[in-house]
Amino acid sequence: MITTPAGFLAGATTAGIKPSGKPDMALVVNQGPRFDAAAVFTRNRVVASPVKLSRQAVANGKLKAVVYNSGNANACTGAQGDKDAAAMVAAVSEQAGVTAADIAVCSTGLIGEPLPMEKVLAGIETVAHDLGADSAYAHAAAEAILTTDTVSKEAGYDGPGWTVGAMGKGVGMMAPSLATMLVCLTTDAVASAQALQSALQKASDLTFNTLDVDGSTSTNDTVVLLASGASGVEPSQEELDAAVLAVCSDLADQLQADAEGVTKRVKITVEGTGSDAQALNAARTLGRDNLFKCAMFGSDPNWGRVLAAVGMAEADMDPDNISVYFNDQPVCVASTGTPGAREVDLSGTDIDVRVDLGTGGAGTAFVRTTDLSHDYVEINSAYSS
Amino acid sequence: MITTPAGFLAGATTAGIKPSGKPDMALVVNQGPRFDAAAVFTRNRVVASPVKLSRQAVANGKLKAVVYNSGNANACTGAQGDKDAAAMVAAVSEQAGVTAADIAVCSTGLIGEPLPMEKVLAGIETVAHDLGADSAYAHAAAEAILTTDTVSKEAGYDGPGWTVGAMGKGVGMMAPSLATMLVCLTTDAVASAQALQSALQKASDLTFNTLDVDGSTSTNDTVVLLASGASGVEPSQEELDAAVLAVCSDLADQLQADAEGVTKRVKITVEGTGSDAQALNAARTLGRDNLFKCAMFGSDPNWGRVLAAVGMAEADMDPDNISVYFNDQPVCVASTGTPGAREVDLSGTDIDVRVDLGTGGAGTAFVRTTDLSHDYVEINSAYSS
Repeated sequence: MITTPAGFLAGATTAGIKPSGKPDMALVVNQGPRFDAAAVFTRNRVVASPVKLSRQAVANGKLKAVVYNSGNANACTGAQGDKDAAAMVAAVSEQAGVTAADIAVCSTGLIGEPLPMEKVLAGIETVAHDLGADSAYAHAAAEAILTTDTVSKEAGYDGPGWTVGAMGKGVGMMAPSLATMLVCLTTDAVASAQALQSALQKASDLTFNTLDVDGSTSTNDTVVLLASGASGVEPSQEELDAAVLAVCSDLADQLQADAEGVTKRVKITVEGTGSDAQALNAARTLGRDNLFKCAMFGSDPNWGRVLAAVGMAEADMDPDNISVYFNDQPVCVASTGTPGAREVDLSGTDIDVRVDLGTGGAGTAFVRTTDLSHDYVEINSAYSS
Repeated sequence: MITTPAGFLAGATTAGIKPSGKPDMALVVNQGPRFDAAAVFTRNRVVASPVKLSRQAVANGKLKAVVYNSGNANACTGAQGDKDAAAMVAAVSEQAGVTAADIAVCSTGLIGEPLPMEKVLAGIETVAHDLGADSAYAHAAAEAILTTDTVSKEAGYDGPGWTVGAMGKGVGMMAPSLATMLVCLTTDAVASAQALQSALQKASDLTFNTLDVDGSTSTNDTVVLLASGASGVEPSQEELDAAVLAVCSDLADQLQADAEGVTKRVKITVEGTGSDAQALNAARTLGRDNLFKCAMFGSDPNWGRVLAAVGMAEADMDPDNISVYFNDQPVCVASTGTPGAREVDLSGTDIDVRVDLGTGGAGTAFVRTTDLSHDYVEINSAYSS
């Protein structure tokens, strides 16, 4: 939980942004003594106002607070959106006594609607005066950032004399106009902004960035890592990397499991190509192929679709020497089906797919994806305003 | 119809490849006097044996016959697949008296299963001795190449003293393991292989290659254009281009309308970016975005998803100056929603989407796509063996 590491307070409230009346604002405050911070943001060129603001705030490697709202993404809201994000920061600064330049903003929810600022500002006033380090506060914050998630997501790591805590919501673009993956990590380790950024970037590449539900990328995705230094312990870069990776990996598993409309969790590994980047391209190409994803939904060991999909990847391959394994059973060798390939049992929730592109190259990578189900279509075709 | 142009015979039979017992083999024979031919094939690196064979057959710009089977794609079938495709050619050569080197093969259906060659060879013997130029023969051939298509697709063009005929099936990768777009065009115009290839490539780029149901690409896609010269009329390149484009455009419309699980036909135009190629990249990125496609299924004018999708395209854009039009109504201007944007009526079958990426650049392109429906998932998750 985000208040497990020493030096952190959290809180949550119901500001009334969500029509459902569920909690929709949270605040995380770092009390120091250090305020080192790192962040990774969406790769989308169209970014929401809070992302623009938060990029600037973290640019000097320092953050003292992050304010969250759910129910409205404040994305594609033009100059008004920029003003509203800045007004949220000003209110947090005033109410919580934190320098405005050290506050980040994360919003998630409907795109293209102006924030209901009266409610938002009243919510900030409420939450800023009800912060705590008790686990109940951390849980409440983890609840308040959810959109169509069915369960809240928290994770933690115990180092020797220091800890990491985390909360997260969403994944990729799963939800109806309620896009966005938001993650907040906290630690009481002593770590420079550079050390944090290095650990967070590496961990994100191996976890959140390998998680691909539908190939879509939100305008608001934000992962923040705050370090208070309150433990007085400075882990090595390797220790920090391992801790951040463990927490991100745990959250990524929870995000995948709760992805909208998911009935299958699919791990795709590609090997035998020219480079890791090529392997990642092929794994993503397969993970985004709707025919393959429908086959997974149907527990159908249809390896022909695997070959048809990877054949379009930008990766070195020997088209006559591709091998495919479902749950470690070879179903296609030398680009030809094996006896019994169509009888492989894929009825379980977890499916492991491995593809060897047959060049003998050392490139390898994996992604995690999900099936394409009736529920996915249902959730994402129902208008949500 | 493919036998409307002088010089062509067609036929069809039920060889028993399809479990359904529907017609599954067809043969098209060019009786000359000329045998100029052109073809375009799938861009997939994993290609079926008949594609490899047909590429070689048409390499010298000549084809005298094309043999079709449906129900089995003869793809990912290894060396046996190559042998089987060659055996089909040998049988056609023997039964129809056509030089083997001038025969192409097109197969569509399940990937990864060996062809039932006894049935296939018997089918060739039957069809080769029951060819005709009557429209009933052309219709029968158009029926026999279908897989999960619900209607057969034919088109034609009347030039001054010459004609073009065509049949087609499938589109992109819509069907359960029954992939593949196959198209056969015939003409009695006098035209060199170079003139035919130029016309066919340009027309394909503007029609079949702009048609994108799910972003998947078959191992077997093949478009063939055969010219008999029997009219004695040699159209200009411009006339030939226009005729081939008209026929391909007609077929593309039919293919889109019959795409599996389709409830919406969506045309996406992108403009205001650096080049036509960039515009095409952005249009394809949007056309393949599952969240956008689900919104179309739900008749939901969710322009935020349009911005989120094009924000990931490899195209020049001004992220703060993107405009979106649904059915010619502006729903987003300067990357901000317009009043009433969420009330735009998208309940009709045809939806027109236009996106201006806001750079002032002259690049423009369009693609045609479909929605992502419950039926798409149903059809593509049900195992089809």
